[in-house]
Amino acid sequence: MAPDTTSIAGYTIFREGDYDSASAASLIPRGVPHPLDQLSIVEIPAAAKLIREYASPKVLKFNCITLREPRKAEYAAFRNGQAPRPDRRAFAIIIVQGSGQVAEVVANLTKSKVEEWKEVQDVAPTLTLEDLDVIERIARTDPRVIKACEGIGITDMSKVFFDGWAIGVDERWGFERRLQQGLAYYRNSEFDNQYAHPLDFTVVADTEREEILSVDVKYVNGERTAAPLTEHNFLPEFIGDHYKNDRLKPIDITQPQGVSFQVRGNELSWAGYKMHIGFNYREGIVISDVRMHDPYEDRDRTLFNRISVVEMVVPYGNPDPPHHRKHAFDVGEYGTGYMTNSLKLGCDCKGAIHYMDGVMSTGAGEAAVIKNAICIHEEDNGLLYKHTDFRDGTVVSARDRKLIISQIITAANYEYGFYHTFTLDGTYKLEMKLTGMLNTYCMHPSEQAAPYGTEVAPRINAHNHQHLFSLRVDPEIDGVNNSVLQSDALSSDYAVGSPENYYGNGFYCKKTPLRTSLEAATNYCHETNRSWDIINPNKINEISKKPVTYKIINNACPPLLAKPGSVVWKRAAFARNALWVVPYKDYEIFPAGDYVCQSTGEENHPHNKTIVDWANRNESIENTDIVCYMQFGLTHFPRTEDFPIMPAEPVSIMMRASNFFRKNPALWVPPSALCVDTMSRNAFPSACCAEKDSSRL
Amino acid sequence: MAPDTTSIAGYTIFREGDYDSASAASLIPRGVPHPLDQLSIVEIPAAAKLIREYASPKVLKFNCITLREPRKAEYAAFRNGQAPRPDRRAFAIIIVQGSGQVAEVVANLTKSKVEEWKEVQDVAPTLTLEDLDVIERIARTDPRVIKACEGIGITDMSKVFFDGWAIGVDERWGFERRLQQGLAYYRNSEFDNQYAHPLDFTVVADTEREEILSVDVKYVNGERTAAPLTEHNFLPEFIGDHYKNDRLKPIDITQPQGVSFQVRGNELSWAGYKMHIGFNYREGIVISDVRMHDPYEDRDRTLFNRISVVEMVVPYGNPDPPHHRKHAFDVGEYGTGYMTNSLKLGCDCKGAIHYMDGVMSTGAGEAAVIKNAICIHEEDNGLLYKHTDFRDGTVVSARDRKLIISQIITAANYEYGFYHTFTLDGTYKLEMKLTGMLNTYCMHPSEQAAPYGTEVAPRINAHNHQHLFSLRVDPEIDGVNNSVLQSDALSSDYAVGSPENYYGNGFYCKKTPLRTSLEAATNYCHETNRSWDIINPNKINEISKKPVTYKIINNACPPLLAKPGSVVWKRAAFARNALWVVPYKDYEIFPAGDYVCQSTGEENHPHNKTIVDWANRNESIENTDIVCYMQFGLTHFPRTEDFPIMPAEPVSIMMRASNFFRKNPALWVPPSALCVDTMSRNAFPSACCAEKDSSRL
Repeated sequence: MAPDTTSIAGYTIFREGDYDSASAASLIPRGVPHPLDQLSIVEIPAAAKLIREYASPKVLKFNCITLREPRKAEYAAFRNGQAPRPDRRAFAIIIVQGSGQVAEVVANLTKSKVEEWKEVQDVAPTLTLEDLDVIERIARTDPRVIKACEGIGITDMSKVFFDGWAIGVDERWGFERRLQQGLAYYRNSEFDNQYAHPLDFTVVADTEREEILSVDVKYVNGERTAAPLTEHNFLPEFIGDHYKNDRLKPIDITQPQGVSFQVRGNELSWAGYKMHIGFNYREGIVISDVRMHDPYEDRDRTLFNRISVVEMVVPYGNPDPPHHRKHAFDVGEYGTGYMTNSLKLGCDCKGAIHYMDGVMSTGAGEAAVIKNAICIHEEDNGLLYKHTDFRDGTVVSARDRKLIISQIITAANYEYGFYHTFTLDGTYKLEMKLTGMLNTYCMHPSEQAAPYGTEVAPRINAHNHQHLFSLRVDPEIDGVNNSVLQSDALSSDYAVGSPENYYGNGFYCKKTPLRTSLEAATNYCHETNRSWDIINPNKINEISKKPVTYKIINNACPPLLAKPGSVVWKRAAFARNALWVVPYKDYEIFPAGDYVCQSTGEENHPHNKTIVDWANRNESIENTDIVCYMQFGLTHFPRTEDFPIMPAEPVSIMMRASNFFRKNPALWVPPSALCVDTMSRNAFPSACCAEKDSSRL
Repeated sequence: MAPDTTSIAGYTIFREGDYDSASAASLIPRGVPHPLDQLSIVEIPAAAKLIREYASPKVLKFNCITLREPRKAEYAAFRNGQAPRPDRRAFAIIIVQGSGQVAEVVANLTKSKVEEWKEVQDVAPTLTLEDLDVIERIARTDPRVIKACEGIGITDMSKVFFDGWAIGVDERWGFERRLQQGLAYYRNSEFDNQYAHPLDFTVVADTEREEILSVDVKYVNGERTAAPLTEHNFLPEFIGDHYKNDRLKPIDITQPQGVSFQVRGNELSWAGYKMHIGFNYREGIVISDVRMHDPYEDRDRTLFNRISVVEMVVPYGNPDPPHHRKHAFDVGEYGTGYMTNSLKLGCDCKGAIHYMDGVMSTGAGEAAVIKNAICIHEEDNGLLYKHTDFRDGTVVSARDRKLIISQIITAANYEYGFYHTFTLDGTYKLEMKLTGMLNTYCMHPSEQAAPYGTEVAPRINAHNHQHLFSLRVDPEIDGVNNSVLQSDALSSDYAVGSPENYYGNGFYCKKTPLRTSLEAATNYCHETNRSWDIINPNKINEISKKPVTYKIINNACPPLLAKPGSVVWKRAAFARNALWVVPYKDYEIFPAGDYVCQSTGEENHPHNKTIVDWANRNESIENTDIVCYMQFGLTHFPRTEDFPIMPAEPVSIMMRASNFFRKNPALWVPPSALCVDTMSRNAFPSACCAEKDSSRL
C-alpha cells in the first residue's frame, strides 16, 4: 500500500489489485443479490467508475455510494411474482473538487449507466470519517492553533488532539463553506485519556479547502484556563494493576446443536419470523420485510416493511458559546454505518454468533469492509409463561428467547449500541445502550459546573445533554394499509356513587383516531399511560372484534428541553414529538433532512425537506400506506460514576402485538417443565428436567 | 400421615415424628442464626407451643408465625459490637376458635416465653392457603350453589371449582364475619383450563365458621348466562401435538469454575456487594444490610438497610357488581411468601443456581418448607463499557454481570415473578414479570366486552385492570441519616435570545428538597423527566460537590385509575402516589395496613395504620432515618394474545448510584477485549479473545 493512501481505522479498503486476494473472494457475494442487499465490494467501485466517467472532466469526491432501494411498488410487484427483478442501482452524493458543488447521482448497475444527476444547493453533506480526519491534521500545524496552545503552556503539538464534529450552527459562514469544528484535547502519552485534558479553545475549519477558518479561545474573566493535567485512565496499561481477576467466574454460553436461526444471504429466519437485514452508511442496520408465521392461520403475516434508526440528536444544555454548537446528529451528520465498530466475539457479543460485514465506500469511490459490523445471535429471555394450579401444584412453564441484531458505533467520544430485538410473543424492541466517554470541558478556577453540568473530575465539566433517537417504522400490519389510533387510559366518565360507577372503580381505554399527519404529531401523556395502536382497519380480530394491531409502547421519550425558537428546536424538529405519522413516499426517510450538517431547520428547503414539511402537507393517514417516526431517549445529567468511562445505560422502545393473533402466538414452544404434583404425595415426583444445584460455593 | 391431615400443594409440612428424618436434618440450620434469618423448622413449632400453652385453654389457629425482626437500634448495636446478640423472637397472629378473636403475639424463643399478647378489633387477617381452601370445599355441597349450577345445566359438582379471593368490599357484613369470596369456574376434565369456563355467580363465605353466606347470581336482562364450554387449553396433554420441538436449539449456560457469589447461611456476597437474604410469609424475599465495597475508598459503604415488596393491588376496572369486588392485594390479603412457588432448575431458572428454601407456618403451628423458594444466580448482562479511539481502532470493552435473587408466586390465576437485580455499576433494579392466567368472566349473548374488558375468546371477557406494586426501601446511603430531593429537568429560565440563553439550548436540573412526609407524597412528571434523589447530606462527593446519592428512576408508575372517593382509592391509598417518604419507625412496614382484608381505608384505625396515617403525622424527613415507598406497575387492557396463558410481561423500577462513587465503580472488571488496531496494519492483530463464529447455519 502506498504510504499516502487513505486508511480508516476499522475498515478494510479494497483497491485495484486487492480483488484477486483470497479475502476479497470470500467477501464477494455469490449468486444474485436480494434487491435490498447492501452494495457489494464489486458494485461500489463499479458505481464510482460509472459516475466518474459521466462527470468527467470534473473530479469528484464520493460522500457516499450506497444502495438505491427500489421503489416500493416495483419491489412489491417483484416479490409477488408480477414483475421482473428490479435493476441494481447505486445512489451517490458527490462533491465536485474545486467548486464544491454537491450532486445526487443515481447509477444503474444492471444497465451500466447514470440515470439521474441532480445538483443541490445550500446543503452540506454528511461528514465522513475521512472528512473528520482533516481538522486534527491541519490544526496541529496552524499558527493560530499553535499560539493558542502556547498560551496555556503547551508546545508539543503531537500531544494535541482534535475530535472533529459537525459545526452545529455558526453564523459567521454559510454554505459557501463546508464546515466542521474541532474540540481540542491534550494527551500526556499515546494512549492517555484525552477527555481528562480538554482545552479551552475550539477550531473551525473548511473541510473541502482544508483551511482553518477560526480559532476561538474561550476566555473566562479575561483569563485562559489551564489544561487539567491529572490523568484519568481506563485502559489496562494504566489501571491493569487494579483488576480483580478472580472476582467473576466465567459464564459460558453455548449452543452445542447450533443456533435456531438460519441466514441465507442476508435473509434471516428464526422461530417463525422472517426478515431481511440490510446495512448502509447512514442508517446502519436496516430490517426489512418482517413477517411472522401465524400458527393458527398457518400463514406468514406481514408486520413491518422497514425498520431503522433514521436520526438522533444529542443536544447539550450549556448555553454559553461555543457550547451551544454541541448538538450532534449522529445519523445525519456523520452516518451510523460509517461509524460502526468491527465486533469481536466474547467482548461485544457472547454465545453462538453470526456476523455480517458492512460494506462502505471511501471518498475515492473504493469499497471498504467493516468486518463483523452486525452481530446476530439469540439469547435465553427468561420465563415465557408459567402457571401453577394452587390446588395440587400442577405446573407448566416455558422459556422465552430473544433474537438480537445489533451494531455498536463510535461517535468520537460516545459509543452507542443498537440492539434490535424480537421475542417469541411477537414483540419487537429497540434497545439502545450508551457508553464510552462523556463530552468534557475544562473549568476555570472561578467557575462552577452547576447548573449546566457536573464536575466529574477536578476541573472537568461534563455538560448536561439529551440523547434523542428517531426510529422509523414503515408498518405493514397484516397488509399495507394501516391507520394509527392514540390510546389513553381514562377513569370512567361517571362519578363515584352514580349508577354507572357506583364503587368508582371503572376505567377504560379511549381510542382516538389520528386522521391526518398534523393530528398524529403527538406526545406521551403519563397520566393516561398513552400508547399508540398501529392498526389494519381491514382486518378485524374475529374474537375480540378489534382491528389487528401493533401497539407502540414508548414512555422513554423526554421532551426536547431546548426551547421553542431555539437553534436545536428548529434543526431537531423531529424531536419535538414522540410520534409523527405520514403517508409513505419513496425516498422520504430522514426526518431532519437529507442534509443535516449546517441545516437551519427552515421549512420547505428545496433540497432538504424534513418531517415538518411532510407533516405540514397534512395528508390523510387513514387506511393507507403510512410511516411512523417514534422518538425516544433520555436526559443525561452526568454523574461522577460516568467518568472516566460510562457504565452502559440502556433505553428502549417497543412494539407489541395487540389482538393481532387470536391467542398467545407462542404456544408452540415446548415447555421446560411440566410437573404434576399431587397433594397425596407431598413431594416432587420425577420432574421432566433434572433438579440439581450446580453452584459450587 | 393421617388421611385427614392438611396438605398444602408445594409445602413439605413437618409434623411430630418428621423431625427424625434425614430430610428434616438437612433443613435444620446449623450454628447460630443470623438475627434476620427466617424462623427455622424447629423454631416455628417451638413458638406455636409457647403460644398455645400461654393461651390455654383457648384453642388457637395460627394465621402466621414469623420472625419478629429485632428493633433497628438493638440490631445495629449488635452489628457494631456494642451489644449482645438480640434474642430470637417470633411474631404470630392468632385467631381464637369460637370467638374469632384476633391477637398479635410476640414469643421470645431464646427465653422461652410469651412477651406480648395484644388483642385487636375490627380487623381481618391474611387469608392463608388453608383458609382459601375452605370455599371450594363447602361451596360444592351447598344447596344454593348446587341450585345455581343447575340453573345453567351443571349437575356434576365435581367439575365446579372455586378460586378463593379476599372479599374486596361487601357492605352486607362487617368484621363479625371473616369473609372470602369464591369465583366460580367449570372444568370438563381434571386438567381442563377452568378460566375458559367462568360461571355467572359468585359465592361469599365465612372462613372461620365455614358457612356459605350468599350465592350471588348475576342476571343479565333477567337471564342466566350459559357457561362457555369450548376448551382453551395450554397443558401438553391438550396441545402437545402442536409443539414445534425442533424450532429452538438448546442454549446451555454453565459456569465451569463455579459461581462468583458466596453464600454463608443467608448472607450473600458478590462482586463487592454484601447482603442478607430473608424471607417471610407476607413479603416473600427481604434483602437487608446491602452494602458495596468502594474500590477507591477501600471500605464497605452501606446502601440499603432493607428492601422488600410490601404491598400490591390489582384493581379491576369493570364497575358492575360484583366485579367491583375484584381488587386483590396479593401481599397483604394473601401473603407473597405463602404463595411462593417451589422452583425447578432449567424451567424457572437457568444456569448455575443456588436455591434457598422458604419456611412457612401452618394453621396448626407446624413448620412447612417450600423447597427452592428463592433462586439466586448471576447472568451475563451485556456490555459494561466500551470505547474505541476512532483514529486507530484502539478499543477496550468489559462485560457486565447481574446478580438476581428471585421468587415466583401464584395468586390463583396470576403468576408474578419478582427479580431483585444488582449490576456491577452499583444499580439495583426490581423487575416484576406478570404471567399466568387472566381473570375471566362469562358474557351473555346480549353483552359486549367493551369498554371495560376485552373478549379474549368467544363469550369470555377479561376485564381491564392495573397491577400496582409498592417497593419499600429503607435507604442507608453511606449512613443512616438521609434526605430526599425531587429532581426535575427544566429548560433554562431565560428566553431564547437573552444573554443567558441566546441560542435557547440551556437546561438544568432543579432539585427540590422534600422536607416533610406530606411534601414527599409525590408523583411522576413526564414533562420534567422526574426522578428522586435519596441523599446523604452529611457526605459530599468531593469531586462533584454534590451529596452522595442514590437516584430513584421510576417512570412506570401509572396513576390509580379508580376515582378519588372510590373504594379502591381508599383501601389502596398507597397507590395514589409514586413515592411516599416517612421517618423510620420499627414495625411500620405495610402501607395498606397490617390487616388488609376487609379494610375500609379509614384513617387512624387503632390497629390498622396505613401510609396515609404515617404521612399525615407530617414529620420531618430531612437528614434522618427515612423509609421510601415506591409505587410502580402497569395498566393492563387485555388482548387476545394474553389468552389462554399470558406471555410474561416485565415492568421495573431502579435505583442508581449518582455521585455516590468518585468514579465508575466497576473499573476493577477485567476487560473482555483490548485490541490495538493500528492503521498501518489495516487488519486485526491477535486479539486477546478468540475470534470464531461458532454458529452452525
